[in-house]
Amino acid sequence: MYLYDAWYVAAWDHELGGAPLARTLLGMPLVLYRAGDGRAVALDDRCCHRRAPLSKGKVVGNDIQCGYHGLQFDPGGACVRVPSQSTVPPGARVRSYPVIERNRWVWVWMGDPTAADASQIPDLFWHDSPAWVAVTDRFHVKASYQNLIDIQLDQTHSRYVHPTSLGNDGAVATPPKVRRDDRTVRCERLMPNADPPPIWAKIGDFTGNVDHWIKWVYYPPAAISFDVGVYNVGTGAFEGNLTHGISVRNSHSCTPETATTTHHFWVAARNFKLDDPEVHRAIGAIRNTFLEDVAIVEATEQRIADDPAAPTIDVNADHPTIQARRLLARLIEEAAGRRAAE
Amino acid sequence: MYLYDAWYVAAWDHELGGAPLARTLLGMPLVLYRAGDGRAVALDDRCCHRRAPLSKGKVVGNDIQCGYHGLQFDPGGACVRVPSQSTVPPGARVRSYPVIERNRWVWVWMGDPTAADASQIPDLFWHDSPAWVAVTDRFHVKASYQNLIDIQLDQTHSRYVHPTSLGNDGAVATPPKVRRDDRTVRCERLMPNADPPPIWAKIGDFTGNVDHWIKWVYYPPAAISFDVGVYNVGTGAFEGNLTHGISVRNSHSCTPETATTTHHFWVAARNFKLDDPEVHRAIGAIRNTFLEDVAIVEATEQRIADDPAAPTIDVNADHPTIQARRLLARLIEEAAGRRAAE
Amino acid sequence: MYLYDAWYVAAWDHELGGAPLARTLLGMPLVLYRAGDGRAVALDDRCCHRRAPLSKGKVVGNDIQCGYHGLQFDPGGACVRVPSQSTVPPGARVRSYPVIERNRWVWVWMGDPTAADASQIPDLFWHDSPAWVAVTDRFHVKASYQNLIDIQLDQTHSRYVHPTSLGNDGAVATPPKVRRDDRTVRCERLMPNADPPPIWAKIGDFTGNVDHWIKWVYYPPAAISFDVGVYNVGTGAFEGNLTHGISVRNSHSCTPETATTTHHFWVAARNFKLDDPEVHRAIGAIRNTFLEDVAIVEATEQRIADDPAAPTIDVNADHPTIQARRLLARLIEEAAGRRAAE
Repeated sequence: MYLYDAWYVAAWDHELGGAPLARTLLGMPLVLYRAGDGRAVALDDRCCHRRAPLSKGKVVGNDIQCGYHGLQFDPGGACVRVPSQSTVPPGARVRSYPVIERNRWVWVWMGDPTAADASQIPDLFWHDSPAWVAVTDRFHVKASYQNLIDIQLDQTHSRYVHPTSLGNDGAVATPPKVRRDDRTVRCERLMPNADPPPIWAKIGDFTGNVDHWIKWVYYPPAAISFDVGVYNVGTGAFEGNLTHGISVRNSHSCTPETATTTHHFWVAARNFKLDDPEVHRAIGAIRNTFLEDVAIVEATEQRIADDPAAPTIDVNADHPTIQARRLLARLIEEAAGRRAAE
Repeated sequence: MYLYDAWYVAAWDHELGGAPLARTLLGMPLVLYRAGDGRAVALDDRCCHRRAPLSKGKVVGNDIQCGYHGLQFDPGGACVRVPSQSTVPPGARVRSYPVIERNRWVWVWMGDPTAADASQIPDLFWHDSPAWVAVTDRFHVKASYQNLIDIQLDQTHSRYVHPTSLGNDGAVATPPKVRRDDRTVRCERLMPNADPPPIWAKIGDFTGNVDHWIKWVYYPPAAISFDVGVYNVGTGAFEGNLTHGISVRNSHSCTPETATTTHHFWVAARNFKLDDPEVHRAIGAIRNTFLEDVAIVEATEQRIADDPAAPTIDVNADHPTIQARRLLARLIEEAAGRRAAE
Repeated sequence: MYLYDAWYVAAWDHELGGAPLARTLLGMPLVLYRAGDGRAVALDDRCCHRRAPLSKGKVVGNDIQCGYHGLQFDPGGACVRVPSQSTVPPGARVRSYPVIERNRWVWVWMGDPTAADASQIPDLFWHDSPAWVAVTDRFHVKASYQNLIDIQLDQTHSRYVHPTSLGNDGAVATPPKVRRDDRTVRCERLMPNADPPPIWAKIGDFTGNVDHWIKWVYYPPAAISFDVGVYNVGTGAFEGNLTHGISVRNSHSCTPETATTTHHFWVAARNFKLDDPEVHRAIGAIRNTFLEDVAIVEATEQRIADDPAAPTIDVNADHPTIQARRLLARLIEEAAGRRAAE
C-alpha cells in the first residue's frame, strides 16, 4: 500500500544527464532523463508499442526515442514520431509524471497529476546552501521503506546498532517528545549533560559529557530531516547559544522501489570547518553507520518475510515510529476515500 | 502455449558425442545422445525409477544407463536392465522422441510420434553445402521464443538496434510484401538504390547506394531463413543477374526452452570469398549484431513480465510479425482441435 | 510434513562458541548459542519486538541481546530486559527448544517440549570415543532430507554413483535383510567372498576378494548409523573374529532445513591405525564420495521439482528405503493423531 498522491525522491539531480536513467518507484518502472532544454522528465519506462524499456533508447532533443523501433515521445509522454509511417496512431503515448528539482533532489509525483502540490516538498536547504557542506550517497536496500523509516525514527537503536559511532546512553535513557500534525510528525530528544556519541565526540573534540539534541521531522511518505546538536555542557545551547559545539543536518529519503526494496537517498551536512578534509572524512564515516542500519533492517525484513503473521509486542520507545506509521496510514486512507468519492 | 506436433531444433549435430546432453525444450527436460550405432536419440531426462536425470548417466552401446541405480534404457525408451534383479518391471520406460538430423541441426518432434512428418523440416542447404561457408552459434536468451522471432521478422528495428551494422534507412522506408500460406509466412523487401547497411558496405566494398533485398520465410513454430542480397545499383540483380555484389543466407531457430527462455541457434552463410579470413571475420561480427537483438528483446521481456496486461498499440511495420503470430496461433488451434476430435 | 516431536542434529558442538549461530531447521529459523555457564541454547531467531534476528545480536552472560534495540532474552526465552524502560511488557518472550549435546552433536527437540525424551537419541559413541578417530563435515544440500536419506539406505547406488570408491558388485548382487520395529529400521547385507569396494581395498591392503558387510540402523526422522566391515575371506569375521581386516562406523544426520534443503552432518570413524596420516587422508577422501551422493540427489531433486506428479516405478532394491519411508510416515501420522486427541 503506497501513498500515490505524494512526492518521492527519484534521483540526485546529477544522475540526470545525457543518458536515460531507469528507476523503479512504487513498483512502477520509470525512465528519467534531462531534456535538451534542461528539464527533468519522468515517463513510464515501457514503450506503448512493443513494451521495450525507453531507458534503453536515447534522448533526442527534448524527446526520448525508443531503442527498439525508434518511436519518439515528448516530455508530456505523447508519441510524436513512428519512423516507418507518416502519422502517429491514436492513443500512442506513455504516462508522464510531474517532476520538481529542489535542493539537488529530483522529486516525482506518483499520483494524480492535477493534485501535485509543490508546497508539500520539504525545504532541505543544507543540501545546496553555500554555508553547508554535505556527505551524500544512495543505497539500494532490500527492505520495505517503512522498516527503513522505523530505524531512522527510533534513536534507541543506536546504542546497539552503532556502538562505535552514534550510540550513546542518553538516547536510550531520555524519552522523546513527539508531536503529530496533519502532515508531519516532529520529535525532539534533549539530552543535557549526556555522554556524546563517539563520532561527535571525535569530530567536536569533546572529552566529557555534552548537551546533546536530536530533532527530526518526518514528512510522509518517505522523507525525514534531522537537526543534531552537540555542545559544551551548560553553555546555553538549548536556549539558542550555538557557539560552543557543532551541529549537523541530515536528510533521508526512503523511496519505495517495490514493496520490499527501497532507494535510500541520504545527506549528512555540517556548517562548520567546511574546508577541513579531516572533518570531512570523519563525517564521511557515517556512511558505514548508515550501512549498519541497512544490515539490521535487511536481516529483520528477511525474518518478517519468513513469517509475516508472527505476533510482535511494542515497547515505550516505539512511540515515535507508531505515530509516523499512523499518520502515513491515515493519509493513505484519506487518498482512498478521495478516489472513492470521485 | 506451444505447437507440440512440430519439429524443433534441439542441438547442433556436433553437440551429440560420447556424453549425454541435457536440454530442455518446451519446458520438457530431454536427454540427447548419440547411440553407439551413430543414431541421435532423444528421451525424457528423468529415470522412471527415482527420477534421476538420465543425462547424469552414461551411454552404453546404444543405450543410456542411469547414473543413480544403473537402470538402462534403449533408444526407444524401454528399460532393458535393472542391475539388482533379473527381470524388468512392467511399465519401466521413458518417453522417446522422433529425431532427424538434417543440415547439421538435430530436429526433435515434440508431439504425437505417429504424426511426425519429415517433409516439414525446411531445406537449409547452406548449412552444409560445400558452396557455402557459415558462421554459427547458439545463444541462451531470457525471452519468449515469440518475442525473439518478432525481432527477426521486422527489419525496421535494425536502424535503431543495429545502427553500426545492419541498420539502413531503406528498410524503414520500404514496406515489405508479405504472403501467408498454410504453413509459412514469406516476406520480401526490395530496396532499389538504397543506402547499404554498414556491414554489407564494408564486406562488399560498396561506396554508394545499392540494390538491396531482404527476403525471409518463417516456418512455424520456430525457424526462419533469410536470403539477403546487396548488388550494384541497376545491374539487374532483382531480375536474377547476381554478378555484381554479394548474397548471404541466414537461419534462425528460436527454440522455446520454457515459456520465457529460448535456445537461439543461428547460421550466417555466404557463397563468395569462401577462403578469405578477413571476410570471415567481418561476417563473424554479426554475432555482436545478434547479441544486440538479444539485449533489447530480453529487456522488453522484462517489461512484459512487470505488467503482462499493459495495453499496446500496433504500427504499420508490424504487419509481418502479426501475420506470423496469427499463423502460429492457427496451427496451435488446429492441433487442439485434432486432439479434441480424437 | 515433518515429525516435530523428535530430536534433530542442529550443529556440531564446536560450532557453538561466543557468537550466536543462525540455523534454520524444519523451516524454523533458530538461533543457537552457548550461554556463559556452558549450556547450549536454542531459541526462535526472531525478536518478539520488531522481529530482528537474535543471531545478529550478542551473548551477554547466559542471555542473548537483540542487536537492534537491545532486548535481552534468557535461555528459557523470557525477555528479561528492555533498555529504554524499567519493566518488561507481558508476553515478551521467544520460543525456547530443548537441547542435548551428545557425541559432539547438538540435538534440538523441535516439538512439544514436555514430550522431549532423551532416550530417543541414538548412541553414536565412535564420534568421541578415544578408541576411534573420525573424519567429519557438514554439507548444505539442495534436496529434501528424505531423498538424501534414500541414497544412504540403498547401497546398490554405489556401483554407479561411486565407481572409484565405494562401488562393488557384491552390494548389487546381495539382497539386504531388513527389519523394522517401532522406532528403527535395521538392515544388513553380508557379502562373503565379494569384490571389495576400491576405497577399502586400498586402505586395508586387500588384493583379492573379501568378506564384507554393510549394516545400518535408521533412526527416524533423520539419523543413520553404519557398521561396515571388510575382512579376509573365511577368517570368521561374520562370526565375530575381527582380527584380519578393518571396520568403520559412519553416521549421517540429514536434518531438514526446509522442505527442499538439508543440513547433512556426517562422521566416518575408524578404530585402526589411529595415528596413521596416510590412512587418515585415504578415509578423508570419503568426503568426495559423499559429495557424489549430493550431486546425484540434488540433480534428482531438480527433476522432481520440475514435475512432482510424474509417475515412478519401484524395483526390488527399494525395499529398505520403502520401509524407512513407511516408518517415518507412520510416526508422523501417530503424532498427528496425538495432537488431534489433545
